[in-house]
Amino acid sequence: MAVYDLNGKNKYYTLYTRIRDDIISGRYATGEKLPAKRALAADLGVSVVTVQLAYEQLLAEGYITSRERSGYYVEKIEVRAPSWSVPAPEKGAQTPPKSQYVLDLVKSSTPSGLFPFSVWAKLMRGVILDCGEQLLERVPCAGDGVLREEISKYLYRSRGITAPPGQIVIGAGAEYLYGITVQLLGRDKLFAVENPGYGNISSTYTLNGARVAPVSVKEAGICLNELKKSGADVAHISPAHQFPTGIITPASTRSQIISWAEETGGYIIEDDYDSEFRLSGKPLHSLYSLCPERVIYMNTFSKSLAPSMRLGYMVLPPQLLHRFMELFSSVANVVPLFEQRALAEMLRGGYFERHISRLKNHYAEIRRLTVETLQNLNVPCAVFDTGSGPHLLCKFPQAPSDEAIKGKARSLGVNVKCLKDYLLAPADGMDRVAVINYSGVTKEQIYAVRERL
Amino acid sequence: MAVYDLNGKNKYYTLYTRIRDDIISGRYATGEKLPAKRALAADLGVSVVTVQLAYEQLLAEGYITSRERSGYYVEKIEVRAPSWSVPAPEKGAQTPPKSQYVLDLVKSSTPSGLFPFSVWAKLMRGVILDCGEQLLERVPCAGDGVLREEISKYLYRSRGITAPPGQIVIGAGAEYLYGITVQLLGRDKLFAVENPGYGNISSTYTLNGARVAPVSVKEAGICLNELKKSGADVAHISPAHQFPTGIITPASTRSQIISWAEETGGYIIEDDYDSEFRLSGKPLHSLYSLCPERVIYMNTFSKSLAPSMRLGYMVLPPQLLHRFMELFSSVANVVPLFEQRALAEMLRGGYFERHISRLKNHYAEIRRLTVETLQNLNVPCAVFDTGSGPHLLCKFPQAPSDEAIKGKARSLGVNVKCLKDYLLAPADGMDRVAVINYSGVTKEQIYAVRERL
Repeated sequence: MAVYDLNGKNKYYTLYTRIRDDIISGRYATGEKLPAKRALAADLGVSVVTVQLAYEQLLAEGYITSRERSGYYVEKIEVRAPSWSVPAPEKGAQTPPKSQYVLDLVKSSTPSGLFPFSVWAKLMRGVILDCGEQLLERVPCAGDGVLREEISKYLYRSRGITAPPGQIVIGAGAEYLYGITVQLLGRDKLFAVENPGYGNISSTYTLNGARVAPVSVKEAGICLNELKKSGADVAHISPAHQFPTGIITPASTRSQIISWAEETGGYIIEDDYDSEFRLSGKPLHSLYSLCPERVIYMNTFSKSLAPSMRLGYMVLPPQLLHRFMELFSSVANVVPLFEQRALAEMLRGGYFERHISRLKNHYAEIRRLTVETLQNLNVPCAVFDTGSGPHLLCKFPQAPSDEAIKGKARSLGVNVKCLKDYLLAPADGMDRVAVINYSGVTKEQIYAVRERL
Repeated sequence: MAVYDLNGKNKYYTLYTRIRDDIISGRYATGEKLPAKRALAADLGVSVVTVQLAYEQLLAEGYITSRERSGYYVEKIEVRAPSWSVPAPEKGAQTPPKSQYVLDLVKSSTPSGLFPFSVWAKLMRGVILDCGEQLLERVPCAGDGVLREEISKYLYRSRGITAPPGQIVIGAGAEYLYGITVQLLGRDKLFAVENPGYGNISSTYTLNGARVAPVSVKEAGICLNELKKSGADVAHISPAHQFPTGIITPASTRSQIISWAEETGGYIIEDDYDSEFRLSGKPLHSLYSLCPERVIYMNTFSKSLAPSMRLGYMVLPPQLLHRFMELFSSVANVVPLFEQRALAEMLRGGYFERHISRLKNHYAEIRRLTVETLQNLNVPCAVFDTGSGPHLLCKFPQAPSDEAIKGKARSLGVNVKCLKDYLLAPADGMDRVAVINYSGVTKEQIYAVRERL
């Protein structure tokens, strides 16, 4: 019999691991009887209870069996020893390093100093301490009823959209909701996406098993002839302000897209990701309002609050809501309820709209400085800006190439991409156009670049 | 020309909607010239700027065009009028009604009074106010580095698992992570799931486009012969404590499952969803520790904190981590960063383990009362309980049927399901066994039922 040295508090556990290791290493043979509990306890100078607990653990794990009025016997097992070494912390798991650029015109982020930290802390604290036990329950698949009600009211007052709370579905950000639409509409469907466009839209559809057809964006929005030719079942478009072209789809094209959906039985996903940031005038009215039967309206708080918030929503046509409930009614909603309720309070209390108003003022100022800086560059350039934040285009007709534009920018500490970088399939007439996303830019950063010029 | 009555603050917007509606209704014909700005302003008694803004909005939406030195003309469009009626709040969107049962032994929830509200409020407030701007950035696909580091340490001290933080992936709850594994392993793969089992596992796989093969759970855990015959590529199992059977997979079966994976090149998803709740002794060592190359370890905080928290994690084998980064590196993690960081603080400060310890004491007491109540029912019954919370089985050998058991329970105000209700495919020998899930049960509820007896 092995001699075990048992120190420390968890004596039974130490004893259990020693015996287990002896079984694994073969020091105890299969079928061998373990010492009687009393005898082993006396040998080791521990209580019988300690031995009892260790044996129970071995029994529960199947290393030994108990034969009535006889004792404990080693089971026939081929087990591997678990590895117990201490994990070394890995560098890669830490937060990524800060951008090395003076000015980053590629990354989307919340402008420094504008997130309402103290409001959010106050609302969150109120929600956690006041709402209590009701916030611990599994959230219904479509999301918290209180938040859906507030989003419904917000959509009506800010966007003129009539969306009953029951048709609103909350999700963990836009990309998560794209995945849900694939499950809802079917993996066999062909999704038309805008070209150029936001690459994560098409990659998320592909990742979820659907097929994707890039369709050109022209001056009047998505090209209808191409859309029809593609044979797509679903068109994912951003009529309010397309990224990266900045194009606002005019009313006549809007009607034609709706007609396409009605004639083919197709669906439109109206991605309204930054309609809040129309810097002059109200946001354009939505496709959803024109034809609530064939349009899935989608929006997110990632742009308006913070990319780390992960909260988006969609408004489903009635027949798709029905299908959604069939598929997901037993699944819990993925957004933490505390956060849903804090956001509901933010909407209800008017904090959200005050925040948007501050953001718009900030963006207007940044846009003004950006355009001014571009116009003072001493190289011919044409700014294309449809009055909606937070991005615009700038064409440099005399630049030798896109690479030259990006290289020159880099030499000034500026990170920028060109229109062609957002192409999913080849397209003409997109050369020498810089896409200027000023969402996370500060005045100081612009001044810093100006000094380098 | 129509006469517009402009009251209220948003004069330009009112003017814009009126003209737009007149264009839509055909009162303005295609090609018709709009009145000159100055003339219209004078007619309506508003400033020229108001008219200017309204025209710009119509221009941006494509209802009119501007011809230089001539004026504004109505575009040819076939538009539909958006519907602007106020949405009626819907009953269905509200929180679902409270359970009508005195005692609910089906629903999983956090026991009343045990969630650490004040700790969570304090940690969340600290995170929001102290961590600042760095918490607004898009979170890397695998989750926050700080939380992954804390989970790594927690897994080591609580479970003996050596998982480098870089191999840990955070997700919005277990079901969300099941979906990710389908994208990771391939939609063409066959996923073996335990029968009986938690229905959402198989339905989530199906929803994500994968095929599912139910495999029987016997006394020694998942049936290996059936698993081999099924031709499955992946086995999703809960060796620590299977739901609903409560079976703990013995060490020898564990080794055989690992051998199956090694021989076939298959993967094991080790769903460790309630291993924290082993009421006596330590949790059994994990499959992941035995073979980190072929096991995806998965766990969730839904059971230990609250179902509304939506935070789970998995530990990936190195080769799958590589694939994960290939697929998802451009996708943001779906769990809000504020919540990830607050949970990291909860783990770091020891609050989480104190909470688990309180929960275990609570569950031990509830289990004792539950078993005592069952044994005093005056009907023959056999309790099957492997010492792990928060559920156990009770067989009523003389009950006429499962329906009779559930009906009798219902007459006492108790909601309960039977083993057969969790079957995904037919299986023998499961009659007359009640599955008693006491996760959300309070002492008072048990006493209330006792009084009715």
